[in-house]
Amino acid sequence: MYEFSQKALGTRPSAIREIIKNMNDPSMISFAGGNPAVECFPIEEIKKYSAKILEEQPVRMLLYGTTEGVPSLRESALAFANRYGRISTAEDDIAILTGSQQAMDFTARVFCNEGDTVVAEDPSFVGALNSFRAYGAKTVGVPMEDDGVDIAALEKAFAAVPKPKLFYVIPNFQNPTGLVTSAAKRQVIYDLAVKYDVPVLEDNPYGELRFEGEYIPPIKSLDQKGLVLYCGSFSKILAPGMRLAYIIANREIVEKLVTVKQCSDTHTNSWSQMVCDEWLRHSDTEAHIRAIRRVYERKCRLMLAEMDREFDQRVRYTRPSGGMFLWATLPKGVDMTAFVLEAQRRKVAVVPGSAFLCDEDGSTQCFRLNYSTPSDEDIVKGIGILGGLTREVCAGL
Amino acid sequence: MYEFSQKALGTRPSAIREIIKNMNDPSMISFAGGNPAVECFPIEEIKKYSAKILEEQPVRMLLYGTTEGVPSLRESALAFANRYGRISTAEDDIAILTGSQQAMDFTARVFCNEGDTVVAEDPSFVGALNSFRAYGAKTVGVPMEDDGVDIAALEKAFAAVPKPKLFYVIPNFQNPTGLVTSAAKRQVIYDLAVKYDVPVLEDNPYGELRFEGEYIPPIKSLDQKGLVLYCGSFSKILAPGMRLAYIIANREIVEKLVTVKQCSDTHTNSWSQMVCDEWLRHSDTEAHIRAIRRVYERKCRLMLAEMDREFDQRVRYTRPSGGMFLWATLPKGVDMTAFVLEAQRRKVAVVPGSAFLCDEDGSTQCFRLNYSTPSDEDIVKGIGILGGLTREVCAGL
Repeated sequence: MYEFSQKALGTRPSAIREIIKNMNDPSMISFAGGNPAVECFPIEEIKKYSAKILEEQPVRMLLYGTTEGVPSLRESALAFANRYGRISTAEDDIAILTGSQQAMDFTARVFCNEGDTVVAEDPSFVGALNSFRAYGAKTVGVPMEDDGVDIAALEKAFAAVPKPKLFYVIPNFQNPTGLVTSAAKRQVIYDLAVKYDVPVLEDNPYGELRFEGEYIPPIKSLDQKGLVLYCGSFSKILAPGMRLAYIIANREIVEKLVTVKQCSDTHTNSWSQMVCDEWLRHSDTEAHIRAIRRVYERKCRLMLAEMDREFDQRVRYTRPSGGMFLWATLPKGVDMTAFVLEAQRRKVAVVPGSAFLCDEDGSTQCFRLNYSTPSDEDIVKGIGILGGLTREVCAGL
Repeated sequence: MYEFSQKALGTRPSAIREIIKNMNDPSMISFAGGNPAVECFPIEEIKKYSAKILEEQPVRMLLYGTTEGVPSLRESALAFANRYGRISTAEDDIAILTGSQQAMDFTARVFCNEGDTVVAEDPSFVGALNSFRAYGAKTVGVPMEDDGVDIAALEKAFAAVPKPKLFYVIPNFQNPTGLVTSAAKRQVIYDLAVKYDVPVLEDNPYGELRFEGEYIPPIKSLDQKGLVLYCGSFSKILAPGMRLAYIIANREIVEKLVTVKQCSDTHTNSWSQMVCDEWLRHSDTEAHIRAIRRVYERKCRLMLAEMDREFDQRVRYTRPSGGMFLWATLPKGVDMTAFVLEAQRRKVAVVPGSAFLCDEDGSTQCFRLNYSTPSDEDIVKGIGILGGLTREVCAGL
């Protein structure tokens, strides 16, 4: 009945969110979500800072703010991003966003015309892919290897005509695979971006959640040409319901992003911004992050141990050193979609890997498991059920 | 250096926000803003509900929420919108948005392709016009009369080929003019929308701020065909920094808007939503709104009385019965832009009317004054300065 735009007709609802929405069934064990572990929210501190702000500067908090963000948070978030080693240059600027998803949305809007291509790791975060597609961009996938994208395939994608407008990459504990791009590959990615003049959108929501191995500097830290847009999030270390992220990029790009934001949500909620600023300035954020890492490490190891015991040995899976997700691959001959649906019927939810493919019509043997949201008890019970199912479906091979 | 999209190249920063940004000079008296009167924020209640939520359901508040909004707020906001008489039908749905600006952004995205036209009152709210332009839509203006748009011009705009994709209208205390669309014209607008099958985006941020005359039901209340998208805001009655608005429309449209929101900011900040829900359910919102109206009435009457005394009689201006703005017209022969710049030099800021024109290259003799933000003292002092300037510039005519 309505004459919607091409953009609206082309936008599909996120498969993950639709699954989550249909999972109100309280008897379902969900490995499908992407929620941080609720026991990691610094509730007492949020309470304290919230009360302090409402007491001391309620009017500043309740009035309109500037589009680029609360000045004090822009400072403290920039310092936070640079704390392990400087990643921003003097040519860069920072803007506060209403969650990382807004970075994908606005970056796509600023760079992509209808029909342009965006290169991404394949598989990749479906929310980002959908943001690019929402502006009529085609998503071109580069296969993931254990240490990051296949470099030869990346160069081929960069060299395509017409030139891609963006490369979207999650170097740390990638969603959905849990994989990390090595330092060596980060350098090669940056060098190729320079060679082919392709801006890189580096999404780092999980970087703080490393529980094993060494910190690897982001691609942004290599950037002297203003080609990398770096996006950090407070969803996994503070709380996702606060909707708070930031982007650091050359000031010419940030200016464009801020102009788009002015026409979209004007500015990010001030309460969130001011609470986060207090938290960054006055809390022991390092101790908090260390505590989160311990919880995630325990949950990840528990899930892996259960999988090692319960899963058919022909099922392969990643062994993450951080983040929230792991990625399992069913052997050839098993119908992945039927497996996921049967798991749901047995009250265990996982996300079919097809949701994360750059080619929406592609097929895969993979599915994603989240270990941050479920309780330890549910991890044991749910992996038991899934494991039984893997043994059943593999038995016939 | 960067290859930005056509959309990004076409987006201009809002003239108002740029002026506001450059007005950090504390000696400036600003009639240029659009902030609600800060003395009207229900600070104690926000404190109370915030503390209650953080005490009773912190995890629900801090986790990811559903894109369409907190269910309880969707219910209470719908009841609030329908409280003077039902405006939604059984075919409608409601979604919570991160401020009204997001309604303009998402509605434009859902309906407009590059090159489409959006019809709007002329002058109109620059933030909305910029949202439409950001998607490559052309804004076609219909001149304002004292009781709403010129109907003959509206019909001509609706009958144009190709058909416009939207009509954007602020029926109550319009920004920037302060004018109200009469009940009779609302009916004619709706009938024309049906006749020409043009969806209407009815923006009602100021409707609660009526301090004179009778309530007029919104255009949405006439809508049996699902052609009207109604947008209400909590920025003027609760607090703008909370970034909270809602849209009521046919569920097919709301579904599209929610899909866009999923790819943009995922969901609106939960703290704001839950505090607002508590406020709607447990506070005497009517008494609060009556109190706001009294403040705005006093400020408006004060500004008008000062203008009546201080302004050259050849300057005409609207006499609002609600809202936050009034609209002044300088006599022919006076250079409006030079007037506004000289006023700024004398430390009084107003917004040049050209910022609000549908034709960005058009010219006007008008400027906008805001009476909700400045103190009574600043209203008297600032209007004294402006008045002196009007007498100077008119003396030469």
